Amino acid sequence: MAYDDLFLRACRREPTERTPMWMMRQAGRYMPEYRAIRENHDFLTMCKTPELAVEVTLQPVDLIGVDAAILFADILLPLEGMGLELAFAKHEGPVIGNPVRDRSDVRNLRVADPVADTGYVMEAIRQLRHELRDKVPLIGFAGAPFTLASYMIEGGSTRAYIKCKSLMWSDPQAWDELMTVTTDTVIAYLLAQIEAGAQAVQVFDSWVGFLSPSDYERSVLPHTTRLIAEVSKAGVPVINFANNAAAMLSKVKRAGGDVIGLDWRVDIGDAAEWIGPDFAIQGNLDPMTLFAPVEVIEAKAREVLEKVGTRPGHIFNLGHGIHKDTDPEHAKALVRAVREHSSRIRGGGVA
Amino acid sequence: MAYDDLFLRACRREPTERTPMWMMRQAGRYMPEYRAIRENHDFLTMCKTPELAVEVTLQPVDLIGVDAAILFADILLPLEGMGLELAFAKHEGPVIGNPVRDRSDVRNLRVADPVADTGYVMEAIRQLRHELRDKVPLIGFAGAPFTLASYMIEGGSTRAYIKCKSLMWSDPQAWDELMTVTTDTVIAYLLAQIEAGAQAVQVFDSWVGFLSPSDYERSVLPHTTRLIAEVSKAGVPVINFANNAAAMLSKVKRAGGDVIGLDWRVDIGDAAEWIGPDFAIQGNLDPMTLFAPVEVIEAKAREVLEKVGTRPGHIFNLGHGIHKDTDPEHAKALVRAVREHSSRIRGGGVA
Repeated sequence: MAYDDLFLRACRREPTERTPMWMMRQAGRYMPEYRAIRENHDFLTMCKTPELAVEVTLQPVDLIGVDAAILFADILLPLEGMGLELAFAKHEGPVIGNPVRDRSDVRNLRVADPVADTGYVMEAIRQLRHELRDKVPLIGFAGAPFTLASYMIEGGSTRAYIKCKSLMWSDPQAWDELMTVTTDTVIAYLLAQIEAGAQAVQVFDSWVGFLSPSDYERSVLPHTTRLIAEVSKAGVPVINFANNAAAMLSKVKRAGGDVIGLDWRVDIGDAAEWIGPDFAIQGNLDPMTLFAPVEVIEAKAREVLEKVGTRPGHIFNLGHGIHKDTDPEHAKALVRAVREHSSRIRGGGVA
Repeated sequence: MAYDDLFLRACRREPTERTPMWMMRQAGRYMPEYRAIRENHDFLTMCKTPELAVEVTLQPVDLIGVDAAILFADILLPLEGMGLELAFAKHEGPVIGNPVRDRSDVRNLRVADPVADTGYVMEAIRQLRHELRDKVPLIGFAGAPFTLASYMIEGGSTRAYIKCKSLMWSDPQAWDELMTVTTDTVIAYLLAQIEAGAQAVQVFDSWVGFLSPSDYERSVLPHTTRLIAEVSKAGVPVINFANNAAAMLSKVKRAGGDVIGLDWRVDIGDAAEWIGPDFAIQGNLDPMTLFAPVEVIEAKAREVLEKVGTRPGHIFNLGHGIHKDTDPEHAKALVRAVREHSSRIRGGGVA
């Protein structure tokens, strides 16, 4: 295996001989090799122990054959440095012990120091770049300000976002202050990841699809735009992924970035048109497709690739994280199908 | 209060002096008057006792001031007549005792008889038309075939739809048979509702937004299209509501209907353009807006109304069901705001 920057070339919309692919949550529970490590360490310990984070980050590169590694970490890690108590309850996901409920809680938050507070992430990145030198590029990532703020306010997972939206609407000044301190934290965190060696970064706005377009535009977009503009100055590609927000792509793309991530709820041909030629696109196979028979997986991968055609700048990905019950053999079949069919479409040689 | 067919005129895209409004799940737990009845009867008993269903259906008409009544019922009621065991577990939502898992399960299903199996619904509609004769029109409804099939296969609520999608992909013939018997059931059910007196019907595809557009087009759209075409022959307006599917509205509208329902994830101005002039539109305020201060509720209602302008055929609604913790006074404030501001926009007189 020789180092291949295919993924980075696709981010920059340069011609590629085939379509690179990686999968959101590719270092995860669907892999028995991951579960073997997870069995002996709790989730936060894995995130905070560079050797473990490095090991599971590398697993899908070596075993599944993806074209990029993405750091194993959690989007909520920077919250600890902001002054929040973070835990992962069994089966219930993240829990914030001291959620943000009002203006005075907001004013108690500080901008996290990426090195002092999350130095373990930077150390993992440094080790990973060393390990990956003959393989593939490394992607860093962070949660977008809205998604992080929603966890801080709700104190955990929700489907209604009542507390979060209530604060946003009832005290817009406190909301802006919260988004500002969060954005400052994420900017510093991503710049530190890039300095440590991340060759691209993805901004995950996992829950922004629960907002109406007008709330997104008024209360979120200015912050995400500032985030992406500041991080872009470091010169590595930025992937802007707003989950479940395809009906407001015209607003999402105004936040900027080099690549727009797409979930599976939109036709990638339609999305490419809405987004226009100034961005690369990433996506967008339904992750549940991996529960289908292999020939269906292959047909659906071909369908996505054919809708994109020879457009410069496509990174194949699932439209959401790979599900924990996925058969790894099916993930490998997808990688093979994308590799083979995209080589046919893109000619197998740099145009 | 004199009978006002404002809602029906808007469905038919006739000029209206203001914008009619109702709210999905308007007969529900946010009203203390509803909870008082619910305290003494379980949910299924309320659905199956016409006097109780009638009483709670009328509550929001009398107390909140909406411009249409919608029958109190559950989308899963017709499943019993198809041969499925339906229960509502406390806090866990619907449970199907004998879910559909393969082709032989599908072949054991029968088309439900709307009168023999769900006569209580038709009786409630007859009583409601009598009670509502001096008030507002009555909307009937049903779940769309995909949403019903997803419950039948999963056996309850889910966020992943693994079993449902697996059957759809691994045995398309069984899937088509399941969708066909379900569609036949829903056609008969809605035609019986119309015969009993429903003056419009809404088709709820609550979970279709979990499908990719290509799966929707291939595996769902032909069935929903047949459903709406058959029901439309009865001559009352059909509202086609595909939840969380705004990024595939160009496909959803091909299923037909007189009115396209919109959730809150799309700008209603954009949606009106994508849908075109041949449909009325319904929506699309974020239901959580009702947790905001009253002046924010008013501003956000005005925003929706102004984006629609004087376009013929707008029915104001929430983008999803009203949340159980909503303050009824806030729901009333919304009704007032829509009434006042839309009268200003639409001139307060038929153009």
